[in-house]
Amino acid sequence: MTSPEAREEAVLEAVRKRRELVNDAIPEELPIKRPERLYEASRYLLDAGGKRLRPAVLLTTAEALADVEPLSATYRSFPALDDSGPIDVMAAAVSVEVIQSFTLIHDDIMDDDDLRRGVPAVHEEYDLETAILAGDTLYSKAFEIMLETGAEPDRIVEALDVLATTCTKICEGQSLDVTFEERIDVSPDEYLEMVEQKTAVLYAASACLPAILLGADDETIDALYGYGLDIGRAFQIQDDVLDLTVPSEQLGKQRGSDLVENKQTLITVHAREQGVDVDGLVDTDDVDAVTEAEIDDAVAELEAAGSISYANETARDLVEQGKNRLEVVPDNEARELLCELADYLIQRGY
Amino acid sequence: MTSPEAREEAVLEAVRKRRELVNDAIPEELPIKRPERLYEASRYLLDAGGKRLRPAVLLTTAEALADVEPLSATYRSFPALDDSGPIDVMAAAVSVEVIQSFTLIHDDIMDDDDLRRGVPAVHEEYDLETAILAGDTLYSKAFEIMLETGAEPDRIVEALDVLATTCTKICEGQSLDVTFEERIDVSPDEYLEMVEQKTAVLYAASACLPAILLGADDETIDALYGYGLDIGRAFQIQDDVLDLTVPSEQLGKQRGSDLVENKQTLITVHAREQGVDVDGLVDTDDVDAVTEAEIDDAVAELEAAGSISYANETARDLVEQGKNRLEVVPDNEARELLCELADYLIQRGY
Repeated sequence: MTSPEAREEAVLEAVRKRRELVNDAIPEELPIKRPERLYEASRYLLDAGGKRLRPAVLLTTAEALADVEPLSATYRSFPALDDSGPIDVMAAAVSVEVIQSFTLIHDDIMDDDDLRRGVPAVHEEYDLETAILAGDTLYSKAFEIMLETGAEPDRIVEALDVLATTCTKICEGQSLDVTFEERIDVSPDEYLEMVEQKTAVLYAASACLPAILLGADDETIDALYGYGLDIGRAFQIQDDVLDLTVPSEQLGKQRGSDLVENKQTLITVHAREQGVDVDGLVDTDDVDAVTEAEIDDAVAELEAAGSISYANETARDLVEQGKNRLEVVPDNEARELLCELADYLIQRGY
Repeated sequence: MTSPEAREEAVLEAVRKRRELVNDAIPEELPIKRPERLYEASRYLLDAGGKRLRPAVLLTTAEALADVEPLSATYRSFPALDDSGPIDVMAAAVSVEVIQSFTLIHDDIMDDDDLRRGVPAVHEEYDLETAILAGDTLYSKAFEIMLETGAEPDRIVEALDVLATTCTKICEGQSLDVTFEERIDVSPDEYLEMVEQKTAVLYAASACLPAILLGADDETIDALYGYGLDIGRAFQIQDDVLDLTVPSEQLGKQRGSDLVENKQTLITVHAREQGVDVDGLVDTDDVDAVTEAEIDDAVAELEAAGSISYANETARDLVEQGKNRLEVVPDNEARELLCELADYLIQRGY
């Protein structure tokens, strides 16, 4: 039996190795070409970093399905589950990361966030026009890239259907998120529905796309979609918890900024139901003016209401549910890694 | 031989009849659902009007290819060129119009234009966040709608490839247009390249998509793409000419606004090459402050330099070239209508 530390080290190493391959593939799929300023702006956030968790899920799911040793098969020319030709699952992984990057660029404009991944947001580094256009370019590029996996036409059609409906749901989720900021009666179920649309669907797409492209059956595709939805929701809940519990330096932004900016999280939604005056927890709505002591007091009150435990438990339940869905996949090292990836999403410290 | 007036009347009637059918199909393909505000904002500009010229090109091309009497076949269940099942060419037409609407919403933000089709722009009627998100929603919806034509999978893949690369080119063209505003050495060829990307590719997509979906050969697909590129460029040049020559009331905005806002057009690019001080033609850069007399003087100078004639001739040549490309299509009433549509694009008064 390996120790929890050794297991976490192993999953981090697995994510890191796939990240390096994804980082190599991004400029191949999205070269800087004329008009250069547009493509530089489109690449800016992608090049600034990111854990590449969604591509890691996609690539590892492909390995689990094909029942190959992790990192033993070439992602650019990956074995399908039947006699059809080799599949470029790396293109699919880059496509998903490109969608993620497009949504971040547009979200930062909408939320008026100046910083992302420790660098200025695209609309700050360039300008509003360029940021809108860079996001729009990434949007269509993601479809172009997904068209190049070499899969059978009917599987490409199904993959593009998943990609398009995923993008629509992300927009719907973002729209719900905006309307939630003005409401005080959002229920935990409503919150989780919003998170499913805004965040979890892209994890769901990442998990089911290799199944579609490699030719798995519908039961497997559906189960993997469910796995992605579960771990994606858990991922967002963990983000909400980390915003309150991780020191600002480590977080890269002010701890408790969600509270200051009146963002709904599973924690605040639960606390309201427990009768906590959430809007009164922090007096200011300026992240630069809030003190660590104020955040400490707010966190203490949320802990007393059981809201942070509630969020942690919900995330843990979702991860367990997600892992159980993997039973349709061959029992192998890559499947084990998908379970560890799920655990990592809620154990990570930032 | 019918008179020019009767021919123009006939083409207007043909456009009007197809517009009505497209207007009926839009709410079917894009119903208002939860979150309502997002879908209302997405529909706002589509519902405000528009000539539906690109859908008219698409639907008429389908009729020419299938060699059927105009308006005799149901667009929702249109005969393919081979034994494959019926094709929903109306879905393809709506998809193209939805892309057009998405680009207008984002362009109006980028250009800070307050009015569109006589109503406030989406970012004015709603807000910046909603306008960005409405455009993003239409973007993925266009792909979802194009996925529902019922065509063979390999043809759907090709159609989605055209749609995705078209969107990328529109972004590239818009980016070039922005950089051109700061340059005084743009050549007519560079300008036409920008117009091809920003405007003409969507006409090209409209003309070639039915060929792809109905199963035409590559030669036909390429020829129709070329027809669309030619008439699309002519359409934009005509827009540039109309901005200078049509009274403000009829235009729905200040005549000469392109000159006031220092936008490059084929006319100004040509005039600069002829030594005209284009930037000095109008003193103000405020459309509300310019006088009709100033615009008259500017137009007279551009006419004297031969720049307006040059634009008219270029548009005429492009339309002739485009019409010649239609020889690959069966000689029938719908093909005649495609020729008349091309003529209409440069004869229209607004």
